Amino acid sequence: MIIIMKPGASEEAVQKVSDLIRSRGLQAHLSKGAEVTIVGVVGDKTRLQGSNIEISEGVDKIVNVTESYKLVNKKFHPEDSVITAGTASIGPGTLTVMAGPCAIESHDQLLQCAYAVKKAGATFLRGGAYKPRTSPYSFQGLEEEGLKYMKEAREATGLNVICEVTSLRALETAVKYVDMIQIGARNMQNFELLKEAGRSGVPVMLKRGLAATIDEWLNAAEYIISEGNPNIVLCERGIRTYETATRNTLDISAVPVIRAKSHLPLIVDPSHATGVRAYIEPLSKAAIAAGADGLMIEVHPCPACALSDGPQSLTFEQFDDLMAHIRPYAELAGRS
Amino acid sequence: MIIIMKPGASEEAVQKVSDLIRSRGLQAHLSKGAEVTIVGVVGDKTRLQGSNIEISEGVDKIVNVTESYKLVNKKFHPEDSVITAGTASIGPGTLTVMAGPCAIESHDQLLQCAYAVKKAGATFLRGGAYKPRTSPYSFQGLEEEGLKYMKEAREATGLNVICEVTSLRALETAVKYVDMIQIGARNMQNFELLKEAGRSGVPVMLKRGLAATIDEWLNAAEYIISEGNPNIVLCERGIRTYETATRNTLDISAVPVIRAKSHLPLIVDPSHATGVRAYIEPLSKAAIAAGADGLMIEVHPCPACALSDGPQSLTFEQFDDLMAHIRPYAELAGRS
Amino acid sequence: MIIIMKPGASEEAVQKVSDLIRSRGLQAHLSKGAEVTIVGVVGDKTRLQGSNIEISEGVDKIVNVTESYKLVNKKFHPEDSVITAGTASIGPGTLTVMAGPCAIESHDQLLQCAYAVKKAGATFLRGGAYKPRTSPYSFQGLEEEGLKYMKEAREATGLNVICEVTSLRALETAVKYVDMIQIGARNMQNFELLKEAGRSGVPVMLKRGLAATIDEWLNAAEYIISEGNPNIVLCERGIRTYETATRNTLDISAVPVIRAKSHLPLIVDPSHATGVRAYIEPLSKAAIAAGADGLMIEVHPCPACALSDGPQSLTFEQFDDLMAHIRPYAELAGRS
Amino acid sequence: MIIIMKPGASEEAVQKVSDLIRSRGLQAHLSKGAEVTIVGVVGDKTRLQGSNIEISEGVDKIVNVTESYKLVNKKFHPEDSVITAGTASIGPGTLTVMAGPCAIESHDQLLQCAYAVKKAGATFLRGGAYKPRTSPYSFQGLEEEGLKYMKEAREATGLNVICEVTSLRALETAVKYVDMIQIGARNMQNFELLKEAGRSGVPVMLKRGLAATIDEWLNAAEYIISEGNPNIVLCERGIRTYETATRNTLDISAVPVIRAKSHLPLIVDPSHATGVRAYIEPLSKAAIAAGADGLMIEVHPCPACALSDGPQSLTFEQFDDLMAHIRPYAELAGRS
Repeated sequence: MIIIMKPGASEEAVQKVSDLIRSRGLQAHLSKGAEVTIVGVVGDKTRLQGSNIEISEGVDKIVNVTESYKLVNKKFHPEDSVITAGTASIGPGTLTVMAGPCAIESHDQLLQCAYAVKKAGATFLRGGAYKPRTSPYSFQGLEEEGLKYMKEAREATGLNVICEVTSLRALETAVKYVDMIQIGARNMQNFELLKEAGRSGVPVMLKRGLAATIDEWLNAAEYIISEGNPNIVLCERGIRTYETATRNTLDISAVPVIRAKSHLPLIVDPSHATGVRAYIEPLSKAAIAAGADGLMIEVHPCPACALSDGPQSLTFEQFDDLMAHIRPYAELAGRS
Repeated sequence: MIIIMKPGASEEAVQKVSDLIRSRGLQAHLSKGAEVTIVGVVGDKTRLQGSNIEISEGVDKIVNVTESYKLVNKKFHPEDSVITAGTASIGPGTLTVMAGPCAIESHDQLLQCAYAVKKAGATFLRGGAYKPRTSPYSFQGLEEEGLKYMKEAREATGLNVICEVTSLRALETAVKYVDMIQIGARNMQNFELLKEAGRSGVPVMLKRGLAATIDEWLNAAEYIISEGNPNIVLCERGIRTYETATRNTLDISAVPVIRAKSHLPLIVDPSHATGVRAYIEPLSKAAIAAGADGLMIEVHPCPACALSDGPQSLTFEQFDDLMAHIRPYAELAGRS
Repeated sequence: MIIIMKPGASEEAVQKVSDLIRSRGLQAHLSKGAEVTIVGVVGDKTRLQGSNIEISEGVDKIVNVTESYKLVNKKFHPEDSVITAGTASIGPGTLTVMAGPCAIESHDQLLQCAYAVKKAGATFLRGGAYKPRTSPYSFQGLEEEGLKYMKEAREATGLNVICEVTSLRALETAVKYVDMIQIGARNMQNFELLKEAGRSGVPVMLKRGLAATIDEWLNAAEYIISEGNPNIVLCERGIRTYETATRNTLDISAVPVIRAKSHLPLIVDPSHATGVRAYIEPLSKAAIAAGADGLMIEVHPCPACALSDGPQSLTFEQFDDLMAHIRPYAELAGRS
Repeated sequence: MIIIMKPGASEEAVQKVSDLIRSRGLQAHLSKGAEVTIVGVVGDKTRLQGSNIEISEGVDKIVNVTESYKLVNKKFHPEDSVITAGTASIGPGTLTVMAGPCAIESHDQLLQCAYAVKKAGATFLRGGAYKPRTSPYSFQGLEEEGLKYMKEAREATGLNVICEVTSLRALETAVKYVDMIQIGARNMQNFELLKEAGRSGVPVMLKRGLAATIDEWLNAAEYIISEGNPNIVLCERGIRTYETATRNTLDISAVPVIRAKSHLPLIVDPSHATGVRAYIEPLSKAAIAAGADGLMIEVHPCPACALSDGPQSLTFEQFDDLMAHIRPYAELAGRS
């Protein structure tokens, strides 16, 4: 941590800042420049929590030198992690494809999806039982009933299953039925949910918040891992920008950035990122080429009848084609 | 709702869309232009839910003509609402000032704040008992103990008290102690919490999400009101943009926009919007001048010792000054 | 400037960085922390231009401690500037109102506007002779003919006149006719134009770019002042964000931020910021309350007939009302 | 174009709007709904320019049904264009790689680059002779001298050459020396420059503005093509968002979106998009996989000595590696 003093800050002010730092058992290094004086803090900066140095007299600003996330940080864990969920390994060398309907609507709809995506080569069945919807007048999900269908689909097909949880109560129920839980974009900073997911030990897919920076995202993952659960997969699903040609803006750079900053696996969700069926295939290829460990894709037996996100869902036939077209990109990237 | 067909869409495709609309008991009006055909839908568009018309053959896009929020919509409730919480009325003609520490840290800290803000003219004491923090290694709040101090502060000073709730469990506990609950920016789309807040009937202050559009914000309020709770106050607290000179960008235009679109009262939080003490006074004046019904301000007996958000907290003296300086602006705006 | 080394950077790498700094006649101060080493650079950092220290071996990142703009920086010029343009003084204690049509459409339209805004109390007539338009099929401006009408309007009414310039050629022509030139949002980083405006010595109003940070904006002003022209007024006109309820998002915080970082006067343009007539009055009041030195407002004798930006233009009557309603706010802010 | 009336708009207001539409030789189709009336406009909407219907009494909002760009629109030119510049064809089936230094610094630097990128397989040499720089105190370019070196490099290597122009004067000069001119992000809406580029007939690479929507970008291209110059290549180079881990956010979705909306070729510039060397290779692969027609890459003989953008420039060796690693992706995408 570095403290930059204002031009003309008094000797006394600099002394007071240095004293504060030393009073917490840390060292303070001064650099007096022509315009400004800089104070470098050496030692464990968490000891300065609550010191509010930024409002000490004469202080201009504080610059953090090290990241606040530790356990998910690649600097302290240079090897890329491989996460196990159900029968699947997620990480380097593999391409994980999670596919299924946005919302679980009925037993038949889900089972049809399961057989179809299994046949096309997916390794996970996805499906929403608890649906966070912008308007209260939209379909809100089948809840536990949906989870039972998920379990049945797993037994029928051998697919691993993943489901979003939107509350502590949903989490408690879901862990009885699924191989992996998803914490969605809207809950990325629902810290109670993150902590409980951490305590549960169940593999978690953590989606990036709609307006979350990569640093905030990694701090959210730190909430989970700091409760003792290292089984985390990140999922980039588009961020909010001024551009309206797509529902969100897929931040493809997040793939190499996460690769550089964290050891956690990362998958990409082009369905939610764009909201447009025709853009899913080119962006799936792009995600694999950029180094993603997998994809999450919405599939529906009849997109035109879907209760949620129909327009971005692929038909079974379109999903078959997608899987066939991305395979050579996965091979090129050394994934199978 | 309007359906815009692609150039060259076949007669058959147009017919199919019209049939779909009529099959749901609605009327379809065709306008055939030189380039494109447009289909207007007349009737209650919720009947088209799940029809996914946008992926019918030949459809280019859908344009919504009416808003999806109804009960908070000014079109159907033209008179501005006045909300009662504790002993306070919030709305036209009044200026509500909610002030207090970001986090409740101790009995003494909270009581000191209560006496100080009361003396300066605030009508609500704010204070966080459940703190959503970006890093898991930061102070997380006193929880129920903090709520007890809030209640005590109310009894001692006659101030109304407001506290953020971050989960169903926190909501259940908080309603026993406070006059108004706050749903924070990170939970604006925590729909279970919104619905439960709606069922509780307790007055709610709903902060705008960090990346929420005004439409999404009003839809979130619709979740609360549609459960039978009309006691909602909106709070603008800054949105995320590319500008980094302030922590967030205060969207001052939200004040007249909300005034035009909804009958709910709106207050402004310049403390969280900027994160910088020196900007709070000019932006407080601006908020009042733009037509806000009140302010939410962070105050701390010793900002340099605060466990949370110290740098944006005002001292008691600074808060006294602020209140004195904004008073003439409130009078000019016809508020007292 | 501070150089932050990667964890585990070798002694040699640190030495190499220090040597590079010293080779340019600067001092290097080392702080060795538990995790990382920091190198503080003391002296004039422009000597490091082209050194690309950030890609030296072992370097993690560079943190700039001082701003790259100097002459517009309040740190080196603490007193707020007052700019003279025509007969007007712009700065502390005054409220400058620039009003007129978006585009000059005809002799009569402009003269009518001039008389109307003069009568209502404006001090400047604005009007576009060169129109930057998103589509090539829209009205593009009267060019020099329009400037002649501006000059005539000035003579007829005594108003000062301001006109946007969009190229070197337009600049050359405009300086013959107007008291102040405007560099618009789209040209904020048209550096040739900025430099030429600097050399011209003519007072310049510099609008903030649609996606410009406050730092970039002040650097753009530095281009003008570094050519010897200190007669610069800044104009906040909204930035691009994800919110679509207004055309742009008025960054009201820019008012106190600019006040803190620069000595240049600042005016606010609520017409372009929102694009909606009904929001202009509340935002005008907010701008004054936040500390702006003036306003720029679009006015048209017949908004419904305007060739450009009609929907955001006020009628003469509406402008009269606006001037009457903002006056008490200006008085409260100590401006006349 | 569709006009949506306010709820409760009078019959008279609707009549007035219809009359206005018909007075311009267009047809008006009414749809009266339960809540609102909609007026569809049939015919060439440019006839309504300057009618400002949006502020007619009773009008709520206007919805445009067709795009304002025509000549670059895929709807009216469904086949993808192939652009010829120098000896190169840019478009389907080819992968164009433009490489070279950010700024031309000297004869030797440029010639070294030319030989190196030619050897590695690039088809264009890029190099800036006119540099738009945020700070006036940074290196500003060699101007015409630099262009002469470009011409010499072309003759020496057979590479095609491309150079950015930042003003009408620069454009006039550049066309004498280069095969293709670049209009940079900061000038995407410098409409005089666009029109002059259109009149010149020279092939143009048009970069997307930092905060430009895809629609605005296509409208900017329409300025060039509407002056008779169809030789346009678009270049995605990142947009401004709140994320700071990369310099800008590469909008990879722009690739399929442009493919769907326009027939113009599109290349991607990962160097400017990220500002970080390590992210260039993964994003180059992603761009090709998404369907881009080419790449623009910064290369420098000694990035550590570069006067501009050193940290994002590749060494010759790194560029060799990049070219080798992207080749199989190009082949997979059917490009050579």
